[in-house]
Order: sequence, then structure tokens, then C-alpha cells
Amino acid sequence: MSVEDTAERIQSMEVRGALRIAVTAAEAMLSEIMGGADIPSLERSAGVLKAARPSAVSLPNAVDYVLYLSRKHEDENTRIKRVEGFIESQRKARQKIAEIGSHLIEEGDVLLTHCNSTAATSVIKAAHSLGRKIRVFATESRPRYQGHLTYKDLSKAGVDVTLIVDSAVNFTLHEKNIDKVIVGADTVYVNGDVINKIGTSQVALAAHVNDVDFMVATESIKFSPQSLLGIQTQIEERDPREVADFAEQVFNPAFDVTPKEHIHQIITEYGVIPPEAAYHILKEHYSWRLEDG
Amino acid sequence: MSVEDTAERIQSMEVRGALRIAVTAAEAMLSEIMGGADIPSLERSAGVLKAARPSAVSLPNAVDYVLYLSRKHEDENTRIKRVEGFIESQRKARQKIAEIGSHLIEEGDVLLTHCNSTAATSVIKAAHSLGRKIRVFATESRPRYQGHLTYKDLSKAGVDVTLIVDSAVNFTLHEKNIDKVIVGADTVYVNGDVINKIGTSQVALAAHVNDVDFMVATESIKFSPQSLLGIQTQIEERDPREVADFAEQVFNPAFDVTPKEHIHQIITEYGVIPPEAAYHILKEHYSWRLEDG
Amino acid sequence: MSVEDTAERIQSMEVRGALRIAVTAAEAMLSEIMGGADIPSLERSAGVLKAARPSAVSLPNAVDYVLYLSRKHEDENTRIKRVEGFIESQRKARQKIAEIGSHLIEEGDVLLTHCNSTAATSVIKAAHSLGRKIRVFATESRPRYQGHLTYKDLSKAGVDVTLIVDSAVNFTLHEKNIDKVIVGADTVYVNGDVINKIGTSQVALAAHVNDVDFMVATESIKFSPQSLLGIQTQIEERDPREVADFAEQVFNPAFDVTPKEHIHQIITEYGVIPPEAAYHILKEHYSWRLEDG
Amino acid sequence: MSVEDTAERIQSMEVRGALRIAVTAAEAMLSEIMGGADIPSLERSAGVLKAARPSAVSLPNAVDYVLYLSRKHEDENTRIKRVEGFIESQRKARQKIAEIGSHLIEEGDVLLTHCNSTAATSVIKAAHSLGRKIRVFATESRPRYQGHLTYKDLSKAGVDVTLIVDSAVNFTLHEKNIDKVIVGADTVYVNGDVINKIGTSQVALAAHVNDVDFMVATESIKFSPQSLLGIQTQIEERDPREVADFAEQVFNPAFDVTPKEHIHQIITEYGVIPPEAAYHILKEHYSWRLEDG
Amino acid sequence: MSVEDTAERIQSMEVRGALRIAVTAAEAMLSEIMGGADIPSLERSAGVLKAARPSAVSLPNAVDYVLYLSRKHEDENTRIKRVEGFIESQRKARQKIAEIGSHLIEEGDVLLTHCNSTAATSVIKAAHSLGRKIRVFATESRPRYQGHLTYKDLSKAGVDVTLIVDSAVNFTLHEKNIDKVIVGADTVYVNGDVINKIGTSQVALAAHVNDVDFMVATESIKFSPQSLLGIQTQIEERDPREVADFAEQVFNPAFDVTPKEHIHQIITEYGVIPPEAAYHILKEHYSWRLEDG
Amino acid sequence: MSVEDTAERIQSMEVRGALRIAVTAAEAMLSEIMGGADIPSLERSAGVLKAARPSAVSLPNAVDYVLYLSRKHEDENTRIKRVEGFIESQRKARQKIAEIGSHLIEEGDVLLTHCNSTAATSVIKAAHSLGRKIRVFATESRPRYQGHLTYKDLSKAGVDVTLIVDSAVNFTLHEKNIDKVIVGADTVYVNGDVINKIGTSQVALAAHVNDVDFMVATESIKFSPQSLLGIQTQIEERDPREVADFAEQVFNPAFDVTPKEHIHQIITEYGVIPPEAAYHILKEHYSWRLEDG
Repeated sequence: MSVEDTAERIQSMEVRGALRIAVTAAEAMLSEIMGGADIPSLERSAGVLKAARPSAVSLPNAVDYVLYLSRKHEDENTRIKRVEGFIESQRKARQKIAEIGSHLIEEGDVLLTHCNSTAATSVIKAAHSLGRKIRVFATESRPRYQGHLTYKDLSKAGVDVTLIVDSAVNFTLHEKNIDKVIVGADTVYVNGDVINKIGTSQVALAAHVNDVDFMVATESIKFSPQSLLGIQTQIEERDPREVADFAEQVFNPAFDVTPKEHIHQIITEYGVIPPEAAYHILKEHYSWRLEDG
Repeated sequence: MSVEDTAERIQSMEVRGALRIAVTAAEAMLSEIMGGADIPSLERSAGVLKAARPSAVSLPNAVDYVLYLSRKHEDENTRIKRVEGFIESQRKARQKIAEIGSHLIEEGDVLLTHCNSTAATSVIKAAHSLGRKIRVFATESRPRYQGHLTYKDLSKAGVDVTLIVDSAVNFTLHEKNIDKVIVGADTVYVNGDVINKIGTSQVALAAHVNDVDFMVATESIKFSPQSLLGIQTQIEERDPREVADFAEQVFNPAFDVTPKEHIHQIITEYGVIPPEAAYHILKEHYSWRLEDG
Repeated sequence: MSVEDTAERIQSMEVRGALRIAVTAAEAMLSEIMGGADIPSLERSAGVLKAARPSAVSLPNAVDYVLYLSRKHEDENTRIKRVEGFIESQRKARQKIAEIGSHLIEEGDVLLTHCNSTAATSVIKAAHSLGRKIRVFATESRPRYQGHLTYKDLSKAGVDVTLIVDSAVNFTLHEKNIDKVIVGADTVYVNGDVINKIGTSQVALAAHVNDVDFMVATESIKFSPQSLLGIQTQIEERDPREVADFAEQVFNPAFDVTPKEHIHQIITEYGVIPPEAAYHILKEHYSWRLEDG
Repeated sequence: MSVEDTAERIQSMEVRGALRIAVTAAEAMLSEIMGGADIPSLERSAGVLKAARPSAVSLPNAVDYVLYLSRKHEDENTRIKRVEGFIESQRKARQKIAEIGSHLIEEGDVLLTHCNSTAATSVIKAAHSLGRKIRVFATESRPRYQGHLTYKDLSKAGVDVTLIVDSAVNFTLHEKNIDKVIVGADTVYVNGDVINKIGTSQVALAAHVNDVDFMVATESIKFSPQSLLGIQTQIEERDPREVADFAEQVFNPAFDVTPKEHIHQIITEYGVIPPEAAYHILKEHYSWRLEDG
Repeated sequence: MSVEDTAERIQSMEVRGALRIAVTAAEAMLSEIMGGADIPSLERSAGVLKAARPSAVSLPNAVDYVLYLSRKHEDENTRIKRVEGFIESQRKARQKIAEIGSHLIEEGDVLLTHCNSTAATSVIKAAHSLGRKIRVFATESRPRYQGHLTYKDLSKAGVDVTLIVDSAVNFTLHEKNIDKVIVGADTVYVNGDVINKIGTSQVALAAHVNDVDFMVATESIKFSPQSLLGIQTQIEERDPREVADFAEQVFNPAFDVTPKEHIHQIITEYGVIPPEAAYHILKEHYSWRLEDG
Repeated sequence: MSVEDTAERIQSMEVRGALRIAVTAAEAMLSEIMGGADIPSLERSAGVLKAARPSAVSLPNAVDYVLYLSRKHEDENTRIKRVEGFIESQRKARQKIAEIGSHLIEEGDVLLTHCNSTAATSVIKAAHSLGRKIRVFATESRPRYQGHLTYKDLSKAGVDVTLIVDSAVNFTLHEKNIDKVIVGADTVYVNGDVINKIGTSQVALAAHVNDVDFMVATESIKFSPQSLLGIQTQIEERDPREVADFAEQVFNPAFDVTPKEHIHQIITEYGVIPPEAAYHILKEHYSWRLEDG
């Protein structure tokens, strides 16, 4: 598909999900490379693609890394091989996370998860399919009840899952002897702070005070190179009617920020890392330099 | 009304609400006293009334205090006068709390409340009617949405109120510069811990970490003399269908316990106290001795 | 002196200092009692005196307690004797605090104090005069440098004292192995929070984190009965020129509030108490009931 | 027995244990009263008894309270009856604590205890004899292995008990999902701090961080009236050979101080209290006034 | 200028300021390289320069990096180009920090700064010149009142700035709803701890407890390679007369250490990093290996 | 020695200690390389060696790094030289740690150590031999009393050392003004958590709360590459008879996990690092990639 078409499909949200956006954009760049595009032309394409959804953290990560590989490898074959390798690694990321994360779930563990994260549920299901006897508490995650998806997904996979309201987290952590909390991420800042669904910061706070491990599972493509530049994600405020339709005043933020101090580790496709290694991952796997910014 | 009829109305929950139960039971005891009942007979009546709802913390407080006054004052007129005085003080408690609490709400304060507590909203409305410009964030309080009542009640009174989901508490505390949190109580333990609607403990934890004052407004009749004896309230688990009807496994606790360390002060009809003075109040105003237990 | 003259001298700040205000007002009431004033007349006098300086916490404590004693004891001789006893106990309070507090200062202790509190320095000097070898660090206490008074006062008494800037507190606590911090109080709230000179709250915070005992020395006459009613002291903002005369914008608050969680104990003339016992002291020694408010 | 003989038996440690010392001394005072001793004579006896073991916190509590009762009741019969009542209440204290404390131990609880406290083990055994299925971890409590006594005592009573080394506390709290920690006390300070066997403060700290309830079980006779006066208990340093005989330098403190912030509640014969109510108990049950000090 | 002359100007403090020292020393090395100096000769020059001010953290960073580049690139032209590039990057560092940091200051932010850091004020002024409406509180920073410079500098730039005494920090953070604290650094340790003007550690502690973001703005040339070797900076004690001239004993430390746990992020010319990435920066941008130490 | 013989000696624990295992295994690989083994053959040898003790964290680090070097350098001489260099660096690691760590021990420091770590005692002895006057408190480290070895080792070296029981840690930290805690490590996780002898986590917790620096000294060969894969070390439970022989139930875990938040820095042969840089060290010095896992 052409770069323009891809950009349009990303903009119209026909292509959505951090990983799919990254892979689709990288593939559009790969087509250009295969078609013999030179560096200035690839830079233009990169610009078009990144403009399609300025807030998507995976987009500049993918597009700029393809550019970086293209600049580094002048030989076309090597260039194509490396870009293909990068795309392949993205495709396998979730499976890798599930594999690695499953080692962190032990026989008899009681887990708690918030909202509905494919990375987090993949880890849980991988542990379950290894035969570990585990139990999961899932918050309903108001206002959009994404916790219902988590409940259904885990139930279908045969995992013992129990639903709770968001207000019952602190009580459940204590009363049900939760061993570990595992959630996903929307964006990981360079300093290790994690942006995720509203409520995540108070789940992490309660886990911290109850001395329960709090883990984040996420593909590294969600690590934010913009945060290296000090650019912060604006927390989106959503339609009040998601919360209640009778009320004239509703404050309905979609996300919040969990500070690094409350995160025990992050499970990525490149291994388990402390949150502060977000900086390292951006340098190591996306070759980010400020000059590229 | 007879003691037996009163007991039945309490048991059938025709009479409900901590304060109404206390007043109704004390009135039934007062009828007996007026009818010339002697101490052994009053002790029997007290037993019948207390058995009507063993978990209601206000019931033994009221009934046993009437017994205590009856034992102390042999002269019938004095006895009646003192019991009437006690009943009167209970009736005025909420108004007194509103008055005292309103002093703690300052011009320009941004408040947050959880669930729907008449004591807490009375304080807020009293401050509003004194002309203070305040703003309130109210949690919806899943699963029963009691926060909608709070929203409507405060709106109707002309208070600037905004609804949020329970997961947005930590974010709102920080982002909206909340000055104070005020909630009600179901039961106050002798050591100062407070039992209240599920979610209160995590609101208090977030307030503690954000350095926001956390206040409880409650009539002293809810202070638990049983906790002096080590008897703890069982946290009631409610109908799973309140949370979701499709799910087979739901954990739906109705209350949780907020530790005294997270409570800045308690507003009672006898004044503002530190939570640890719960012991003092039980001694001073309900004349509790272990021997009475 | 007449009640009106006394009120005027208090209002004009000719009489100042919490203790002197309390004693002078009580003496004016005593004159009235000796002159045979009846209760309604004493109530009028109390009103006049309390209006002279509405923010002085010791004023209602003293005046209302004299009223309480007058109501309780109808016999004139007893009445006079009790009021004299109360005035005498106030006069001896500081000496008593010094005596009690000196037991808490051990051989070899390194202390830190903030601002200039006579109660706190009395404790230090009493320990010194018992022959204990101690060392004191005194903050200079900008903007008015009251720490210089502390330095001179302790030096003159032969105590080994060293001056530091306010910013050096945290470093000094750690580097000089401070054993205990001791400060005075302007007002003690009923829940145990303490209002004192600006900076006290950050000294207490640093002491808390460095696991250093933080003690307050204060006469009980400074415990606030108004706080029982929810009435909070307004933090006075002082003349900007105290801080700098070139700047157009200066924020110069005179006091701050130290939360009870950071106070290890309070030394009063009635003994060492936990901060939460402020409620008890108001009830026990000033016979405060909300009805008196 | 004569006051002098009793004093000698206390001094020679023939009579030991806080409770036995208190009861024996009170009985010696009672003999004097029965023999018609007047107040000055009783004051002398009190002096002799208190000098027998100046560091025993229960001794002045018992002796001075008998003096207080004697001063209050001039009629000999009443005087004797009240002193007998006091002695009787001391005798029943432990049984009362066991009863009250047993309510705080719930079905399925996993407990941890440190050292060997009869009050704490009485609570555990009372809960066990009510048929509750509980499990206990007992520290060995170096250097004197008092934990072995705890292990044997609980084993004999049929309680499921497991021994651990003192270093395994933090790990065990987390790994074995401990619900509650219960220990005894040597002395309770007026501000709520508790002196107990060395190691108690770090058990409490770990419990605090792991969000595990930390409870103290103790007779109120161990509450320290001296601490009201600022007099602190010196932490005794014991024979180095208890720790190792080859080492020339051993630091072997017998006790440490657990701060009130880490204590959830104290179980006394007068009910469950917050640690800060120690002040209240001294006032209420031992009628302590500073003037008596 | 010759290496010897440069060393002398650094020693005599004619050249001062971390950045100027680094640039001047690197330029002296560059002259040598341009003059055809070989590696042994450059090593001698490096030794002379580093000895000129052993405590200046930017000196070994600059000099040793020039050495490293010289060893790596044998070709003289490349060598010169790389060293020039390094010097250029140092010169642009502050501007880069201002740019990056300005993204972290949001419309309506209320900031607090301590002492006078050009990096921190550059960030503030950059945000202001982007049209963001911000407000700044500046501590006076006793004893040398560097806060007055900050006040004047920001005022002149049109920023709304208010002066406070150092003791008012905790109160101001709470009362004025401070959003972010931003300060500079003297030295950043390899583990992320930051040495800065006395008082910084207590500002950071108060920010931590008030849940306010604490940011450090600093050129990476201040990251300490010596700390990798375990060598710690001695905290300089300054002239007592800076504090008061009447006092014989004054403790006047110039700096303190803020622990990494209280630092949210560090703004460097290479981007925003968590404090723990100090290690990474030393490796990545200064090519530090222990063998070079 | 042959690979098989070496594997057997490792398996039989004839070769023990993380460092010795690493060096011996690397030497066996070096023999193979010198004997001209090709990559597939070296891979087989690596497999045999790693299987000899699957839980030894230093084994895969050493063996896989030799493999990595072999793959990277095809020229035999270079290959041998690099592997020899690696072995040499391991041999010198402890000496390097002692050197670096000695800089962190200052004149007059009072230290505390737990268990018996050669790395930690090397640091202490190095500081002592530099003439620094220091004092050390050593825990006895029940159940195996490894603290006695520490006591004897330090005594013999002339260091002023005092023995304490494990329960006296918190009290000693406070009472003896401990400046720094230094311990060794069994394993360092990729996120910075440290596994060490049982009790280490509660020593670190007490140090954290007492604001005492907690340092770990360890060779980098103990950093766990498996933890990058999410594989956690099982905490070994040891013979109950080590604790007591009379008891039927003993819980005797050998190690516990100290969270990164309580670790100030780690002293390695590659310099002082924050615990979170464990990830960096594994990447940088052992060239770990997940693909190698």
C-alpha cells in the first residue's frame, strides 16, 4: 500500500492499536525502500506517516527506526533485510512478552488486573496454559467496562476470574492476599512513568502500600521518544455521557500516570526491565538520539 | 409503641438508618420508664431491642446508655428528664455536625466526597449556605451509584458539583487541586479506624499520599462499643448482580476499613476530634465500661 | 484592674504572650468575683475580655474556665480559692514543663530547635543545669531571626549552641546525628496538629524521615478550644519588607501547621502526652464542653 | 506479710513478673490498712515498697493507686472493699485480655509472634480453644530463645506453630501471608510507644510496610506513670556471653521501643484501645495526676 | 592559550562555572592537538589541567573525553573535527536544556525554585517566552540570598515571581498549589543522587510528601565520573560570617545531597532522563570506563 | 581440565562460590578453544557446563560470554586473548571492588553488616588499611552464625567490630548512629532487586526508615541474566535442624529479596551503580541479548 493510503487509514483509525499502527507504517516504508526510494524521499514519507496520528507513540518509534536503518545500511539488500527483521520482531513481540511474563506467575498466585490489556492477559493465559493454578481478580473499569472483556476473555481461556468494582481494589488486595498486579500500558515515559487507563495510578498506590508487586506488560514500541524531548502526552478527557447522562458536570479523564516508584518491573519483548531502563530501551532498540528528535 | 413492636420494626428494617434506630429504640425504653418499669424489666427490654439487629452499632449505644441513666438516677422524674435529654441530643446531632463542619470548609475550597453520606453533605451544604464558594467532586460509587444521589442532592442545593468515576479519584485529587476530602462513616472503631462504603480506604490512601486532608463526618452514635471488646464488624458481601449479571464470579464487598493513620479528624456533634479519641467519646458520652459490655 | 482596662491593655498588646494574657484576664475575673459579682455579670465580663483579642487561644481557655469554676462553686470562698489555684497553676506551668522536659534530654544528646520558644529553651536550660552535656543547633529562623535570640539565650546560660540557616536543617539532622528536635507552639489543635512559626512543618517532616524524635513543649493554655468547634486559625501573612525591600511580590506567612503524625510527644505542665490527647486535656483541665462553646 | 518482707522479696526478685509484683505489693498495703494504718503510715509503706525495685513499672501503679483509694475513702470498710476490688481486677486481667483478644483472631488467621508473652499466647490459646483454625509463626528470639517456650507452650495447647529465625520475619510476613502480629509489652509509655523484647521494633516496622495489623496484648498495670513525668526507661544491656562467648565486643540490648505509629491497637483488660489512649488509661484507672508524681 | 596558562586561570578561579571550565579546558587540549601533540603529550596536558581544580566535576569529564576522542581517531582531521564537535555541543547545552525543559512547563503552572540556577531559570524563561502563563515562587536562599538574583532575573524577563523565606517552602507547596519544583545541580552522582545548594534536599523531601514533581535541570558535564569510582564530593563548609557575625559557633554547609528517590526526572541537553540514567550518560556521552579512571 | 571433569566438580560442589565457578567454567571453555574447538563444539560444552548447576547465576554469565566472544572473534589468537582477558577481569574483580568501595567508607564511619560477604568485608578491610578509623557492628546471622566468621575475620584484620543478635538491628541503627550498611549479594535481578542471606530485606527496610545508606558489594558475575527472561530464583528452604532440633515445624528460608527502592548503590568491579543499572551491566559487560537466552 502507498504511504499516502497508509497514512489515511491510520488517520481514519481504520488501522488502530499501537502495534498494528507501527507494523503497518513500517511496511509502507518497506514498500518504498523496495521500490528504490532514496533517503530524502524516505524522509518525506516518514513525515507524512507521522503526521497521520501525532499522538500515537508507536508511530515515530517505528517510522524513525526504519529511517535510521536506511541511513545506516546503504546496501539495498541489507537495508531490506534489516527492516524486515524489525517488522518481524514487532510481530513476535506479544508472544515473547507472554512467554517471559509467564515465568513471573507462580503456582497458586492470586493476581489482580485493571482494564483490558492484551499484553497483560497474554501473560496470564500463558501462565495458565503452562498448567499453573492461578486466580485473577479483574476490575470492571468504569466508565467503559473494559474489565468485562477481560473477564470474558480469561473465562473463555479457562482461567478462574472474579469481577470486582473499581472501589474494591484496596480491600481485595488485602482481603484476598493478592500476590501480584499486572496491567498494560498506553505509553511509557523515558523516566519510567507509565500512562495507562484511568485508575491505574491508584491501583499501583494501593499495591505499593500493601507491598504487592506491580508489573506492567507492554511492547517496547509504546516507549515514548517524545518524552525524551520533554513532550508530555495530554490526558484525554472523554464524553461525559460515558459516566452519566443526567449530570451536567462530569470530569471524565481517560488515563492517568503511574510514577516509576510504584512499578516493580516492566515486561517487554526484550526482557524484564526496571522502569528506569525505558531510557536504555529507546537508545538500544530504537537508536534514539536527541539529534533525531 | 411497645418494645416488642419497636424491635419488630427494627428487625424488618421498617426503621433504618443508624440515627433513627437509636432514637426509636431509646423512645421505646422511655415509654417503659414512663410506665414505671423497674431495672430488671428495663434490662429485659434492652435485651429484646438489641437482639432485633445485632449488627447495628447505634442500637447498643442507645439502649445501654438509657439503661445506664436509669440505674444512675433512681428518682423517676430525673430519670425521664435525662433520657429525654439524651434523645433530644441525638435528634440535634446532624445539625450540630453541619454547623461545626462548615467552619472547616473555607472560601474557594475544592472538595471530594465518596458515596452518599448525609452527615458529609450536610457539612457541605451548610458551608454553601454560609455563602462560601466551593466546588465538589463526587464519585459515582459503583456498584449502587449512590454518588448520583450526592450529585443530585448537592446540585439541588446549588452547590457546584462534578461527577467522576471511582477510578478517577487519584488523578482528580492531583489534577484539580482538591483541598479536602469529606466522607461519612458506618462504624467507628474504638481505635479510630473507620468502616465505610467500599472504596473509602483507597480514597483515604490517595488523599494521604497527595497530602490532602481527609475528614469523616459522623454522629457519635456510630462509635462501636463492641470494638472495645474486640468484636469486629463482618464486612458484608452483597448480591453479585449489583456488579454484573453475566458473570458467574463476582466479589462484591459492601464496606472497607480506613486506618486511623489516614484520617485527619472526625467531625461529631460533640466537636472535632482526632480518630484516636473514639475511645474517649465512648467513655464520656456513652459511659461505656467493659463491665457493661 | 477593671475588666475594661484589662481588655484594653490586651487589645493594645500592652499585655502580650499567651501565658500573660491568660493570667491577666483571669485576674480581672478574680477581682470581679472578689467584688461579689454574680454569674450574669461574670458572663458579661468574660464576653468583654474575649472580644479584646479574638485570635488569642489562651484567652477563652482562661476566661471560660474561671466562669466554669464560678458556676460550679456557689460558695464564695471556695470559688475564690479555686480561681486562685487556677491562676497559680498557670504561673508555675513553665517551670513544671522545664522540669518534666529535662528528663527527656539525655547525657550527650544533640538537639535542634527552630525559632525562639521560651518553653523549649527552658527545657534545654533545665537539662543543662542538671549537668547534662548537650549540644544544640538553632536555626536562624528567617525572616525575623528569632533564632539569634535563642542562640544568645542558650549561650548566656552556658549551653553549647551552634547557629545554622533554615535550609541546613535536613543536612544537619543527618550529618550531626541529631537525637531530638524540640520546639514550642503557638496553638495546639484538638486533633493534635500544632501551629508554630513558619518552617516548623518542614523541620518536623525532615525529623520524621530521619527517624529523629520531634517534641513540642507548650503550656496547655495554648490548646485551642475553638478547634473543637471546627474553627481554624487563619495563618497571618506579614509585612513583605521583613523578607526583602526591593521585591514587589513577597509571600510571607508567619506560621504553618505540623501534622500530628510527625509529633512524637508534647510536653505540658500536666505531663508528657501524645498529640492526640489534646482533646483530653481540653476536657480535663479546661472542662470544655461543646455546650460552653 | 509485712511491708518490709514484701519489699525484700521484690528486691531479691523472689517475687517477679509485673503482675505478681503489683498484686503482692497491693496485698502488703491491704494488710496495713486492715491493721488500721493511717495515711502518713501508708505513705511510708508506699515509699518502702516502691524503692524495692525502682524500674518496675507496675509497682508505683499498684502502690500509688492503693494510696489514692485510701485517701478517697475514709470509711475503713469501703476502703478495704475498694482495695480488694482493685487486687481482684488485677488477678482477672489476663483472663479478660484473653477473652477480648480472642475476638480479634479470626477463622483461618495466620499469626506471627515474637519472644514469649503470656498475654499474647493467652489470646492465641483462647482463640484456638474457641475452635478457630489458626496458624502461628514464632520467632526463636535470640539470644535467650524465649521463642522456644512459645513454641512448646502453643504446641502443647494443640496450636499449629512453626519456628523461624529472627531474620526470617520480613520474608515470612510476605511469603506466608501473615494476617496479624501479636506481641506482649514490658512497658507502655504515656504517648503510646511500647517497650518490649529486643527485635519488636523491627517486627513492627516490617508489619507496617507489609500492611499487616500489629497488636500488643498487655495488662494496664504495665502502663508507665513515670513517662508522664518524662522519665524514660533505660534499655538494659545484658551479659555479652548470652550472644557469644568468644567475642570480646558484643552489644546486647534487652529491649527496644516500638513507636505508636506502628501499633494498630493494644488489648488490655479494660478493652481494646488505640496506643494513644495510654494517657487515658493512666488517668482513668490509676487516677494519676501529675501532683501525685 | 597554553595548557599551563589555562590551568592557572582555572586554579585562580578566573575561569569559573562548570560549563566554562569544561569548554576552556577542552579548547586548551584542542590547541595542543592542532599543534600536533601526540598521545603521551596530551596525557601530560590532561594531568596538568585536571590538577588545577580537583573538585570541579566538569573538568575530568571534558579533558578525559578529549583524550578518549584523540586515542580513538588517529587521523588528525577527524580528531580535530570530533573535539570541535564536542566543544560545540557543550556550548549549545544550555539552550538545548531550555528548549526541552520548556515542554515540561504547562499553561497555568505554578513553580517553585531554590537558589539561582541558570539551567533552571533558562527553562522557566523559555516557557514564558512561549507565551505560557506561569507563576514562580523563589526561595531567598540564605545565607547568600542567591534567590534575590533569581527574583530579579525572572522579573526582568517578565515572569510573575514571588519571593519567600526558606522556611516557607512546605507551607507554600501546599497553600499555593505548586505544580512543579525545578532546581539546578552542582554535581550528579552516578547513582542519580544530586548535590546542590544547601536546602535542596529538604525542598525535595517536602515536594515528595506533597506529591509535587521535582525536576533537576543540568548540563551533563556535571555528572560525576569520580562517583563511579566511589569518590564522593566533600560538602564544603563556608565562612560562618555569611550567617551571622556575632556568633562564635556557626555550622554553614554549602551543599547537600538529594536522594534519587525524590527526583522525578533530570533535564539534560541529551534529553529528559530518570536520575538512575546518570550511569548511562557517563558511559554513552563521556565514554567512561573504569579503566580510564 | 576437561569440560566434563569441570562440570562434575561444579555439580559435586567441589568447586563452589559464584566467582570460582565462573572462572573455572571459563577456563574449561578456554582449554577447548586452545584445543581448536569450533563453535558447535563450544556450544555443546557450554550446555554441559551450564547443566552442572542450573541455579548458579554466575555460570551462564561466564559460559555464554565466552561463547559470545568466540563467535565475535574468528581469529584464534584474538579469541584466546579476549577470553583470557575476561578471566583475568573476573580474578581481579574483588580487589577492584575493595578499592572502589573503600572510597565510600569515611573517617569515623560506624558500619553495620549482615551475614558474611567477602566482597563486603574486603571493602571494610580496605578502608581500615587506608588508616580510616571505623567501627563495625556485625549481626550473628542465625541460624548458621556466619556473622561469627565476619567477627573473626574483621577482628583479625584489626577492625573494631562488635557482635549483635539479628533482632538488635533496628535498635543499633538508631542508638549507635550507624552511618552505612554494607552487605554482599547472592544474585542481583535485572530490575535491581537483590537476593541475599535471609534477614537482608529487614536490615534494608530498617536502614531505609532510619535514613541510613544501604550499599551492596558484589561482583557483576552475580547479576542474573535469567531474570531478564522473567525466571526467578527459588528461595531455598533449608534443614529445620539448623534452627532447632526439638521442633517439628520450622520454616527455614535461606534467602530473601531486598527491593531496589531500599538500595542506595551497588559497588561492582565496573564501578558504583544504582541498582537499576543491573540491566545496563548485563548488556554492556556480558553482551546479553534476549536472543542469546
